Amino acid sequence: MESALSLSTSRMLARSPFQLHGRSRFGLLNIYPQFRRNINYYLPRFPFKSHAPHNLQVSASISARPSSELRKKPNNSEPDDKLTAIRELFVRPDINIDAYIIPSQDAHQSEFIAECYTRRAYISGFTGSAGTAVVTKDKAALWTDGRYFLQAEQQLHSGWILMRAGNLGVPTTSEWLNGILAPGSRVGIDPFLFSSDSADELKEAISQKNHELVCVYDVNLVDEIWKESRPKPPNRLVRVHDLKYAGVDVSSKLSSLRSELSNADSSAIVISMLDEIAWLLNLRGSDIPHSPVMYAYIIVEIDGAKLFINDAKINPDVMDYLKNAGIEVRPYESILSEVESLAAKGARLWLDTSSVSVAIVNAFKSACDKYSSTSGNANKNTRAVANGPVTKSRGPAAVYKSSPISFAKAIKNEAELEGMRNSHLRDAAAMAQFWAWLEEEIGSGAILTEVDVADKLLEFRSRQDGFLDTSFDTISGSGANGAIIHYKPEPNKCSIIDPEKLFLLDSGAQYIDGTTDITRTVHFGQPSSWEKECFTRVLQGHIALDQAIFPDNYPGFVLDSFARSSLWKIGLDYRHGTGHGVGAALNVHEGPQSISFRFGNMTPLLRGMVVSNEPGYYEDHAFGIRIENLLCVKEAHTPNCFGGVDYLGFEKLTFVPIQTKLCDLSLLSTTEIDWLNDYHKQVWEKVSPLVEGSAYQWLKDNTRPVVKP
Amino acid sequence: MESALSLSTSRMLARSPFQLHGRSRFGLLNIYPQFRRNINYYLPRFPFKSHAPHNLQVSASISARPSSELRKKPNNSEPDDKLTAIRELFVRPDINIDAYIIPSQDAHQSEFIAECYTRRAYISGFTGSAGTAVVTKDKAALWTDGRYFLQAEQQLHSGWILMRAGNLGVPTTSEWLNGILAPGSRVGIDPFLFSSDSADELKEAISQKNHELVCVYDVNLVDEIWKESRPKPPNRLVRVHDLKYAGVDVSSKLSSLRSELSNADSSAIVISMLDEIAWLLNLRGSDIPHSPVMYAYIIVEIDGAKLFINDAKINPDVMDYLKNAGIEVRPYESILSEVESLAAKGARLWLDTSSVSVAIVNAFKSACDKYSSTSGNANKNTRAVANGPVTKSRGPAAVYKSSPISFAKAIKNEAELEGMRNSHLRDAAAMAQFWAWLEEEIGSGAILTEVDVADKLLEFRSRQDGFLDTSFDTISGSGANGAIIHYKPEPNKCSIIDPEKLFLLDSGAQYIDGTTDITRTVHFGQPSSWEKECFTRVLQGHIALDQAIFPDNYPGFVLDSFARSSLWKIGLDYRHGTGHGVGAALNVHEGPQSISFRFGNMTPLLRGMVVSNEPGYYEDHAFGIRIENLLCVKEAHTPNCFGGVDYLGFEKLTFVPIQTKLCDLSLLSTTEIDWLNDYHKQVWEKVSPLVEGSAYQWLKDNTRPVVKP
Repeated sequence: MESALSLSTSRMLARSPFQLHGRSRFGLLNIYPQFRRNINYYLPRFPFKSHAPHNLQVSASISARPSSELRKKPNNSEPDDKLTAIRELFVRPDINIDAYIIPSQDAHQSEFIAECYTRRAYISGFTGSAGTAVVTKDKAALWTDGRYFLQAEQQLHSGWILMRAGNLGVPTTSEWLNGILAPGSRVGIDPFLFSSDSADELKEAISQKNHELVCVYDVNLVDEIWKESRPKPPNRLVRVHDLKYAGVDVSSKLSSLRSELSNADSSAIVISMLDEIAWLLNLRGSDIPHSPVMYAYIIVEIDGAKLFINDAKINPDVMDYLKNAGIEVRPYESILSEVESLAAKGARLWLDTSSVSVAIVNAFKSACDKYSSTSGNANKNTRAVANGPVTKSRGPAAVYKSSPISFAKAIKNEAELEGMRNSHLRDAAAMAQFWAWLEEEIGSGAILTEVDVADKLLEFRSRQDGFLDTSFDTISGSGANGAIIHYKPEPNKCSIIDPEKLFLLDSGAQYIDGTTDITRTVHFGQPSSWEKECFTRVLQGHIALDQAIFPDNYPGFVLDSFARSSLWKIGLDYRHGTGHGVGAALNVHEGPQSISFRFGNMTPLLRGMVVSNEPGYYEDHAFGIRIENLLCVKEAHTPNCFGGVDYLGFEKLTFVPIQTKLCDLSLLSTTEIDWLNDYHKQVWEKVSPLVEGSAYQWLKDNTRPVVKP
Repeated sequence: MESALSLSTSRMLARSPFQLHGRSRFGLLNIYPQFRRNINYYLPRFPFKSHAPHNLQVSASISARPSSELRKKPNNSEPDDKLTAIRELFVRPDINIDAYIIPSQDAHQSEFIAECYTRRAYISGFTGSAGTAVVTKDKAALWTDGRYFLQAEQQLHSGWILMRAGNLGVPTTSEWLNGILAPGSRVGIDPFLFSSDSADELKEAISQKNHELVCVYDVNLVDEIWKESRPKPPNRLVRVHDLKYAGVDVSSKLSSLRSELSNADSSAIVISMLDEIAWLLNLRGSDIPHSPVMYAYIIVEIDGAKLFINDAKINPDVMDYLKNAGIEVRPYESILSEVESLAAKGARLWLDTSSVSVAIVNAFKSACDKYSSTSGNANKNTRAVANGPVTKSRGPAAVYKSSPISFAKAIKNEAELEGMRNSHLRDAAAMAQFWAWLEEEIGSGAILTEVDVADKLLEFRSRQDGFLDTSFDTISGSGANGAIIHYKPEPNKCSIIDPEKLFLLDSGAQYIDGTTDITRTVHFGQPSSWEKECFTRVLQGHIALDQAIFPDNYPGFVLDSFARSSLWKIGLDYRHGTGHGVGAALNVHEGPQSISFRFGNMTPLLRGMVVSNEPGYYEDHAFGIRIENLLCVKEAHTPNCFGGVDYLGFEKLTFVPIQTKLCDLSLLSTTEIDWLNDYHKQVWEKVSPLVEGSAYQWLKDNTRPVVKP
């Protein structure tokens, strides 16, 4: 699928939701926001029916249902009542604010979130994945980006102003607040929904007009008016991720983490990113569609660890597992009080302020101040610099530093890679079955919608061993819909697959042992020479990145231009990054690495990282092209090692044919033709043993070598 | 020549000389400092003899002499006396310091500097282009980078510690000072020699040990002990750069600058970069070897302008010219008092703190404070933010912003480009004559040193119309010397050109209408297959960059990997950037753009910018390869313009054959062979009319098309 930036990356680059609405220094290219996919405003209630075979044991078994059955229309009624109700709360003495900002995020900066946290969608009606709502005493405005202007126009409740972020003259949220509020106003936020960094930026921006940023702790104003109709927080059972897939046991991971703590002169760390918690504990959950994670926090200290989670999610086996690992279970809601008690016992707490909420950071700061004043400790400096000089007078202190889990999780171990390889082969088998079926159906004149096709793909995938869920909502776009990069077909209004147009399919799955993400673009009839030229140039970019060799420790953006070069030659480009990180049986988008034109991300590409390779080209109102494989960074074993560094390259994880009918072979160099033939040879060798019948034949037909004319 | 980063770029990336000595986050690749060429510790006294023909009028005529005649050995005597003398000054009541830092720069952050300002070389003995000397009461240390370790070992006076910057465990200057000085020490600098930004960084770094940064205004301690033997400041006549080469007259430039001042809510600007002053006034000087500039400052106000320069440099014609442009002349030394009087009259002064010295910035700040306190003005905030909200209470204020001249100068107008094209053709004619001569000489068994060859090249160039000077010291390296990227052959100890080894020649010239910079690598005998493979991969990088098409407004570093890709495939690389900006009849290195792995430089490449394209490969103790042309950024006129932006490409300025004997044609693609043949066709067509005899024949022989085997 195309490269929306992964979460952690976006945190590095655009730490505040408000920044996203600023004008770009790179014109059109950079106004592209970090996330493509919609917030999942439905909460699937999968039956606990196991599809897992005995050799791929799923601890808490799960099965997915087609999204067409689950999707429901958002409630579009009573917009004014909601605004009236929320404004009545503004004047409550314990709240007392002049404006309230409702961001898209949950308390963990998740890309996909549970329905009960879709507050921005509830209050405004707008369900797109990116957007910020701001309500003042007499105005309500919603900021979103170019991908969502049309959708927001259709969905926004009456009384809302649409702020087309990135358009000339459109203010940012803070600029708007500075313009319309009387100086010295009070701007409220739910401090759990803002990272400490983004709250700091907001505070700074609105202080220009002497506005005060007010953290409203005790109540989320949207929840307060949502009342009974608000979905319950998800509460699904947590399962243990088998060591044969995780590769490293939880004790070893905790031990490494504790070494990092010691090295940073810290005694504890609080982690709030859900995939970091899942990775650290070798646990998986199903609180959120597509992401096998559970809502929780964890605090790891040198001599203990506490998991903050609703204990209804923990069955006795998992409870034993946690106990064996020395992890205590605490209520999810008690995170703040525990953070405060850490200060009381003099902890030096590692906080990644780009992900940890301002609620947590402030709770610790305040508790530190309290400690300092009550103990008469002269050392008022509660901000320690990691690796800095150690002061003799020790008290509680915050150590502000990026999460050490982010890199550890991104660099896959051999077991994780093996799981990724294996799950990709099964996924490829499902894809071969699917494409064989689809070509036959279309060939025999069947009328299929984009959703029909996505549902059928899910059916094929769900028959594969260890299948759990899709890894994101399938993007199934015929003709012009393929040009909408975030396109999500809706059952009642999606298109019929047009055999005379290009068809783009971007999909992925969560398996017990790995996560997949693949895009193929095909034509069922006769593509035009223009479509072929565009496809071929996208393919050239894909090949150039796939074949790239580069020095160890180089940032990913250096490779981004390789994937665009062939398109640039004729003045074409695509408005998204080329590659994002992918978790191992975890989130389909993860950081910290990326291959993108977001040049601020200096994260180096390192052995064992998994990235997508997905250049594309999109012609508005006509067609979309994207070719996506997942790759793993590996040593290239070059004959020389100039500079004493190793040179790295990529290993392909995805093995599904690329439609050669769409290639203009005269444009491809001999090297590129060789790449294509070699890739198809590997596809045949690896996947043909896994399929039979029409899928076997389809695979044979679609992996035949081509010859340069 | 290889891409040492241009001055302005380096200012953006490494604003302090102290930063250069820090350890890199990218390992070996980034420890490479910004400048390659040595400080010119000689002061050539060219006779005022005109070589300029009537059609290329030089106002103040100049002729260059071979560097072999001018170069002299640095004085290596009495090291201890100098240290003793400088330490005696430490305790003088008006000085009172515990350490003194002596950087390489002059007061204008120049790359090449006049001999009288080579204080670091005088005090330490080390003459390399990059280095910082620090003297304490009992220690003296010099920091330089890997290019200069050997030279520094040989040259440093006794009693000096060599700090091999970039090596593991080697502290930075400030780390060293923090380690050895008693807390609360006083560290002295000459505030004219530090940009405001670099002084701020230094101050911050040493404040960790409560050291104070002391600006010693009234005396430079090295000058104080240098005394009579110190060369006089240069005092050469300034000339007017003809409008037919400059393209835009000084009134228009001043008018544009004043618009920028108004837009930034400023009333005045002080400019200290010498090439910016030369460009703005269409003046040229010869105070510094290779750089056609004069030592000066300028202050431009909305209603006037003052040039601070020794008026002995201004003949009556130039004085009239300045008067006509509304520019008053003031003594060079009066810059500080004028800056102070600007504050007194309430100016809002635009200061580029990355180039303007801390002496000037502090003088203005202090004067602003004085104004605020004496006038009883309540507005103590003397720091204004450009384009920020305008306060009603107006007083003097500093507007901190990058110099507006930097971009204006980098984007060449049509007259400047025409001058660049024309001077490059004349330069190419000289090169053809030179190579024809050299091949004949070597072929007939002549024994020639690297310096002989450089001198002969100067002879050919100096016969060309409008020749003024070399644009840097010629790098003439046979065999292993070619691997020393900054190699400067010395008359008494340089090598003989070995016909059995690769020969690298990087050179350039200043002409009345343009500036050139070219590198060719040749072999006079039979190159090995390894040499050919390396040469061919460097050439592939050169071609890839030359042929790159990219969206308007993209930063140059995006293209850097194109030039390395072919080398990376076999684990090779080069430790310098690929392209630097070049001035039009101005400095051979200029910013702000670059094509480099210094990813912090976000300056976009824009139409009319001139950059070098100079990938290379260097095998220590064996050979060096570099292929360099100058390019001009131009519109690519692609058939499409995705995103509504134009796509840009390059126009070649340099037309000198590339030795095809060194190409492994089997490695080159058809497209690359076509590029080579097309280039040579253009070389033949453009340059053959300018040469005759053996040069004509040589050009013919060396531009014949090659055929892929």
